[in-house]
Amino acid sequence: MESAPAIQKLLDELERMPGVGPKSAQRIAYWLLNSPRDSALRLADAIVEVKDAVHFCSRCFNYAEGDVCEVCASASRDASTICVVSEPRDVSAIERTAAYSGLYHVLGGALSPMDGVGPDDLHITELMARLSDESVAEVVFATNPNVEGETTAAYLARLIKPLGIKVTRLASGLPVGGDLEFADEVTLGRAIESRRAL
Amino acid sequence: MESAPAIQKLLDELERMPGVGPKSAQRIAYWLLNSPRDSALRLADAIVEVKDAVHFCSRCFNYAEGDVCEVCASASRDASTICVVSEPRDVSAIERTAAYSGLYHVLGGALSPMDGVGPDDLHITELMARLSDESVAEVVFATNPNVEGETTAAYLARLIKPLGIKVTRLASGLPVGGDLEFADEVTLGRAIESRRAL
Repeated sequence: MESAPAIQKLLDELERMPGVGPKSAQRIAYWLLNSPRDSALRLADAIVEVKDAVHFCSRCFNYAEGDVCEVCASASRDASTICVVSEPRDVSAIERTAAYSGLYHVLGGALSPMDGVGPDDLHITELMARLSDESVAEVVFATNPNVEGETTAAYLARLIKPLGIKVTRLASGLPVGGDLEFADEVTLGRAIESRRAL
Repeated sequence: MESAPAIQKLLDELERMPGVGPKSAQRIAYWLLNSPRDSALRLADAIVEVKDAVHFCSRCFNYAEGDVCEVCASASRDASTICVVSEPRDVSAIERTAAYSGLYHVLGGALSPMDGVGPDDLHITELMARLSDESVAEVVFATNPNVEGETTAAYLARLIKPLGIKVTRLASGLPVGGDLEFADEVTLGRAIESRRAL
């Protein structure tokens, strides 16, 4: 005995979402079935709208609704610093800290020879063009602290340093609120190497 | 610095889903943004379709796409047994067990004076009509094993027993695969009371 075809189709689509298994999909499907029509359709509309309205910023490749994204369009951002990240979601993560006021450049991935991702697959040419056109004083690498992210940062640093631009990398160390005992050796080792004077 | 308005709207809608918090909503939103347009719109379409196509079965109040639901429409079901449940999702749960081959009746809730849900708010009149029209030999109560569910079952049993129809209730006891040590006292007590001869 199967669910009605329309319900089964919805369950299949919901299960494709990251972090949503069969139980959650069912819970969400029944919640949608129970919701007033308007309320359920607002979700469908939001999905359609996001696919219609959102594309890549022509300058930094962050998600944007206009020609450039809200960060690039803002007059209050410090245009002399560019933070290089892998994905648009990394921009959101950094924006949430409110600790950074410069611009961004989204590479669209990280170098990974194993997965066949080379320099030509990332927005590196566009980054280099921005560095020669704009008066950039510092490039902050905020790629992920894993093999691909570190490789990408090292590769780009070698390209950018000769231009006389300051190149920095996000600090590695113990997560705030974390527990020394549970830190992995590499992170703890990095925290010791990068210890600061108090 | 906020996300683009269309992204923020999608995040708001996603967060309304049960079991989805801000982090999951963001993960799903970026997954949708990264998905090919067709693939993302399939989810939107499935939501629209489910709201357009699915309504209540005219006979048992389960979700249905036609006039009656797939259980009621099936010729292979045993029409002499009706299982009474609170919600359509309970029908799915019982169908998944493949242990039941009769029909259903969905009440659309459970008696709850505290929440102002009385007998007139549930599909009880329709159940009584089915019991007088159809040749039903047994009614199985599968309302939830909580105060509201037990109250509803007791109320309906008092209405149905005078009709000479056999009235049963799902067994309470230890969950299969569970651990005696972690069972609550009420469940364990119920399991002792309802112990079976081996």
